Amino acid sequence: MKRNDGRTPTQMRPVSIKKNFIKHAEGSVLITVGETKVICTASVEEKVPPFLRDQGQGWVTAEYSMLPRSTHTRSQRESSRGKVSGRTMEIQRLIGRSLRTVVDLENLGERTIWVDCDVIQADGGTRTASITGAFVAVCLALKHLHKNKMIDFIPVKDFVAATSVGMLDGHKLLDLDYSEDSTAGVDFNVVKTGQGHFIEVQGTAEREPFSDKDMQEMLGLAGKGIKDLIDLQEKAIGKLD
Amino acid sequence: MKRNDGRTPTQMRPVSIKKNFIKHAEGSVLITVGETKVICTASVEEKVPPFLRDQGQGWVTAEYSMLPRSTHTRSQRESSRGKVSGRTMEIQRLIGRSLRTVVDLENLGERTIWVDCDVIQADGGTRTASITGAFVAVCLALKHLHKNKMIDFIPVKDFVAATSVGMLDGHKLLDLDYSEDSTAGVDFNVVKTGQGHFIEVQGTAEREPFSDKDMQEMLGLAGKGIKDLIDLQEKAIGKLD
Amino acid sequence: MKRNDGRTPTQMRPVSIKKNFIKHAEGSVLITVGETKVICTASVEEKVPPFLRDQGQGWVTAEYSMLPRSTHTRSQRESSRGKVSGRTMEIQRLIGRSLRTVVDLENLGERTIWVDCDVIQADGGTRTASITGAFVAVCLALKHLHKNKMIDFIPVKDFVAATSVGMLDGHKLLDLDYSEDSTAGVDFNVVKTGQGHFIEVQGTAEREPFSDKDMQEMLGLAGKGIKDLIDLQEKAIGKLD
Amino acid sequence: MKRNDGRTPTQMRPVSIKKNFIKHAEGSVLITVGETKVICTASVEEKVPPFLRDQGQGWVTAEYSMLPRSTHTRSQRESSRGKVSGRTMEIQRLIGRSLRTVVDLENLGERTIWVDCDVIQADGGTRTASITGAFVAVCLALKHLHKNKMIDFIPVKDFVAATSVGMLDGHKLLDLDYSEDSTAGVDFNVVKTGQGHFIEVQGTAEREPFSDKDMQEMLGLAGKGIKDLIDLQEKAIGKLD
Amino acid sequence: MKRNDGRTPTQMRPVSIKKNFIKHAEGSVLITVGETKVICTASVEEKVPPFLRDQGQGWVTAEYSMLPRSTHTRSQRESSRGKVSGRTMEIQRLIGRSLRTVVDLENLGERTIWVDCDVIQADGGTRTASITGAFVAVCLALKHLHKNKMIDFIPVKDFVAATSVGMLDGHKLLDLDYSEDSTAGVDFNVVKTGQGHFIEVQGTAEREPFSDKDMQEMLGLAGKGIKDLIDLQEKAIGKLD
Amino acid sequence: MKRNDGRTPTQMRPVSIKKNFIKHAEGSVLITVGETKVICTASVEEKVPPFLRDQGQGWVTAEYSMLPRSTHTRSQRESSRGKVSGRTMEIQRLIGRSLRTVVDLENLGERTIWVDCDVIQADGGTRTASITGAFVAVCLALKHLHKNKMIDFIPVKDFVAATSVGMLDGHKLLDLDYSEDSTAGVDFNVVKTGQGHFIEVQGTAEREPFSDKDMQEMLGLAGKGIKDLIDLQEKAIGKLD
Repeated sequence: MKRNDGRTPTQMRPVSIKKNFIKHAEGSVLITVGETKVICTASVEEKVPPFLRDQGQGWVTAEYSMLPRSTHTRSQRESSRGKVSGRTMEIQRLIGRSLRTVVDLENLGERTIWVDCDVIQADGGTRTASITGAFVAVCLALKHLHKNKMIDFIPVKDFVAATSVGMLDGHKLLDLDYSEDSTAGVDFNVVKTGQGHFIEVQGTAEREPFSDKDMQEMLGLAGKGIKDLIDLQEKAIGKLD
Repeated sequence: MKRNDGRTPTQMRPVSIKKNFIKHAEGSVLITVGETKVICTASVEEKVPPFLRDQGQGWVTAEYSMLPRSTHTRSQRESSRGKVSGRTMEIQRLIGRSLRTVVDLENLGERTIWVDCDVIQADGGTRTASITGAFVAVCLALKHLHKNKMIDFIPVKDFVAATSVGMLDGHKLLDLDYSEDSTAGVDFNVVKTGQGHFIEVQGTAEREPFSDKDMQEMLGLAGKGIKDLIDLQEKAIGKLD
Repeated sequence: MKRNDGRTPTQMRPVSIKKNFIKHAEGSVLITVGETKVICTASVEEKVPPFLRDQGQGWVTAEYSMLPRSTHTRSQRESSRGKVSGRTMEIQRLIGRSLRTVVDLENLGERTIWVDCDVIQADGGTRTASITGAFVAVCLALKHLHKNKMIDFIPVKDFVAATSVGMLDGHKLLDLDYSEDSTAGVDFNVVKTGQGHFIEVQGTAEREPFSDKDMQEMLGLAGKGIKDLIDLQEKAIGKLD
Repeated sequence: MKRNDGRTPTQMRPVSIKKNFIKHAEGSVLITVGETKVICTASVEEKVPPFLRDQGQGWVTAEYSMLPRSTHTRSQRESSRGKVSGRTMEIQRLIGRSLRTVVDLENLGERTIWVDCDVIQADGGTRTASITGAFVAVCLALKHLHKNKMIDFIPVKDFVAATSVGMLDGHKLLDLDYSEDSTAGVDFNVVKTGQGHFIEVQGTAEREPFSDKDMQEMLGLAGKGIKDLIDLQEKAIGKLD
Repeated sequence: MKRNDGRTPTQMRPVSIKKNFIKHAEGSVLITVGETKVICTASVEEKVPPFLRDQGQGWVTAEYSMLPRSTHTRSQRESSRGKVSGRTMEIQRLIGRSLRTVVDLENLGERTIWVDCDVIQADGGTRTASITGAFVAVCLALKHLHKNKMIDFIPVKDFVAATSVGMLDGHKLLDLDYSEDSTAGVDFNVVKTGQGHFIEVQGTAEREPFSDKDMQEMLGLAGKGIKDLIDLQEKAIGKLD
Repeated sequence: MKRNDGRTPTQMRPVSIKKNFIKHAEGSVLITVGETKVICTASVEEKVPPFLRDQGQGWVTAEYSMLPRSTHTRSQRESSRGKVSGRTMEIQRLIGRSLRTVVDLENLGERTIWVDCDVIQADGGTRTASITGAFVAVCLALKHLHKNKMIDFIPVKDFVAATSVGMLDGHKLLDLDYSEDSTAGVDFNVVKTGQGHFIEVQGTAEREPFSDKDMQEMLGLAGKGIKDLIDLQEKAIGKLD
């Protein structure tokens, strides 16, 4: 079975991570996964949200957005609609949770890292590319803090990366592009650590329910893809201590 | 290991489903899962959303809300804040997707079923109780349409019910109540069909990533609980054809 | 003259007040007036609004809402419309004012009682049922505070209850149900104290203006109904000191 | 007993109604009641709201607003707060209802009269001054339609005017100014027709409940004041047929 | 060439400035420019916005609005649309900037002057009339502060006034009314000081781009008009020290 | 006099225009002016806004936004604030007006070109860079329409580009970067055509009013810079017919 773009079912699209893409941000990357392109920045703010005040720990939070013409047909800006869509909220909550699981908030100090994931071109997998890129941006921001002697060590417990996997006409496919994603019967987003543990598993049957065995196979594929992503992250970030 | 309320790890809370709780609705239930109580209504509207117009099929959509004092401390109304929270949006999208997977939209006719899940008392598991109760409310509304000869048969492909499962201090627990949910390290919401297939799997590591094996055990527990819920749904709904 | 449901013009619908309906709230009732059902909760917050800060007194405020399918046809949620309707605002201001007139705010301490009136089933008279039920919920919350020694006595100056009255085809009717309310030419909401004094009188000619004499007769009817409601409140609340 | 401004308890403030104050509007007045000044315009739109479409009748609706510095201290604009307050909604609903009761909507034709009441200087009684002035503006707009042969006769069934009355230190006072209104224990807004019937009665005990007898005396005072206002309206409007 | 209303191309419309039009405001005027009428008030608040706190200086800010029926056909209220239009924002930013350039903020003390410009009748040039009138209202408010010994001298560095100028069918016209403004090919708003320097120049080619020479001639005309406006301001304000 | 980055007062920053930066859009560029980077896309929609329906002509409209971390310190997203700022509105209106003056709307057909200018890195001059880049994106989209035979010729009447100019410590400077812009006493944005005529002139005295002569010198500088920008646009666009 050949996919649209010639890939085998178990093959990811080409991935690149370009560091320091935005000069003002403490950490930033442009991550490219096939034709999907996301700018991820990590901004450090020297205060924490009200619910964490005076607890001696830090926070990581994320926002996600798509440029209006990142998609095939132009979509309306959320700022001009006056509210953020449910899809956007789900995605930014997912990115935030994933990062907070691996960042050592207790040792971050009383500061917030604001992560912004802005999709400039979309072709499927924008949320998983965002997580993968955002982790690198956060590490770069933490290295910046370390270099400026604001933290004693890089407070990161493990790596985190994400990919999607799905079922289409009975085939299990790794890293769905937009055309695959919009026709797949089952769609998983999987977030794992460098040590191979799960942080998030979100599987949805778009039309037909799936079995335990289907799930096992899909998660296996995802695990393999995430390993490769983490190798790329390591190269981009460099030494963490 | 004993739980707060005396349950064993693999035991669900007592569940009851009270039919026709709200007199105006075409279908309605009050579902009680331990101290969690949700009013689910299904309302039939004889038109479909714009994106489905003139396609000869129907639609199912859901809204979810909590009364301000359903929770331990009063929360602000979303109507007075002027916007719906990300959590609410996630939940209502999940309920809607779960129901649409089992309702035969092609044979529903050009009509929309609006499902409203209003939590009047919350003690954990409100989203899974909503799905379980909403399915019954939808079936009751469909029986009402059938009785009034608006549809030729009940357009339902399978049952659907949901429960939560989690890990707390190394123990795998079925059907978390609020105190367990807020301290669990891992938290899964699982939606399955009567035939034992998955519709949704949403697992989140709140603090510590989980292994493949942990996941398998938790999903096994959830499957067992969902079977029991589907037995209760069958009793509440009665004959479907 | 017989009414739809067999009542005489001067007869109220059956009323019941079920205490402690919601377990988390300091005070709560389910009030049922015919087919109208409202959950009223009273929540205690240990602070006052900014305009009362450091004045040594308390505050009572109310919010009102209808579940989407409490009505004959489903109405849109105010949270998804993003704003509260004028009707809702009028009603919650009325409930709040009525309660503040009888609660001894000076002796309540620097705390706020939040009253939530959520209509789960509507058949006319939801605002007056809300006032009648809310007063009981507030008294239960105050008894809770007293029992916990947070106040020395129950700071309530008098009882308060409310009902509606109207004119339909020349007849004066007590306690309008929805079908009567939507066809009446004149519609009064009346709020009175246990001592028989008025707190609010709101009379509206929907189509034909009314005379002084008509008003006198309607207010007389309302007074009789409110006396009965206050008897029921006394039974529900029990000893207040 | 002398009032602040030297009036007797039963005396209204000086009232003037200046016609055609805004040149673009079909009907407009500047109404002055003591130091309270309201611009009332009536604008004709040749269509009706959706719920009245194709029913061959017209509609009258009202909006009310205060300039930020019409009050003693500047208030924030509702447009910059992004929402209309409950008080504003109550008032504009009251104005609209009052006018619709006397305008013969069946004979207005399929058009809407938009009434705008903009308070440029406030000293109590802005809602009652708005009703009194708005009725004149509406009549002027109807005369304009009649002159342009768009209607065969002036579709008005009766006059309508409004005033306030209250209790302060045991005295019943007609036409409260701001300082009286903010200290009164009881406050009534009364809307009556030229024939002396009531359209609206809204009485509120701000602090102490009032008796039947108090109400009768206050309504008597209000009736007297409204008669005088209707005389002034007649002079401003001129011949109506 | 004669204009609609008989003016020559270089002639302004009649202008009047009526002082103390609104009694509660520290400073207020009704400015009339032809058929354009704007109420300008200046309100003093004894605090500054957060970004200026503890810097020992003051602030001037402006809001602008049009009554719904100030225009030929009624426009919707910004408060009922729930947001302020881009045009309104542009205008109120322009008014605020213009005033801040001539008010000596360092010597105003830690207070804010809120300027409200409310157009009650519109016939072109509302933003320039607002600036011209607002400056007078601000000076009157400052004189009020001075009289009450809250400031030692009137902290104003120069006068400021504004007018419009445009090109229509090849003619350069001073002070466009609405019919001219809506057909002009080029439209300038010019804000100048008493000393003849520019504060703002905003020129827009509505259809056809304009040359350097055209601009010079238009700015010359505007300068002449502004001189006359400043003479009128001086008369209205009286002695400033 | 040397500027921060070594430029002479009359020297622009290096400018580059990278075509087809976003693959889905009909026209797109990444424009870089010094450290300022803006993605401009032009999207074609085959309908016009309601006010132009059935008039046989087209429309061009623009939206502008900054990524949260395009700036030195992170700014809040307009979508999460729920409204678009006055500054953003001003800028997008300016971009739209500028483009509409040179596009031949009559010959565009009944379609809308949506222009999106998204600043990914900001260092002053984002609005003028947006106009300069947007014109190229629009031309590329028009060439795309022409190639697909949807229009008979490229409906563009002239080129348009923009730059800023200002006064700082008595020096007139071309093309202000952020540090210059935020300290300049006078700030002009100038939009001109290929033929050297003005489309917009917006000059603001931030602190000290400026003379006629100052303005002449600044506009001369701006004209020179715009000529160079138009040369670059011509190279990027290629043959227009």
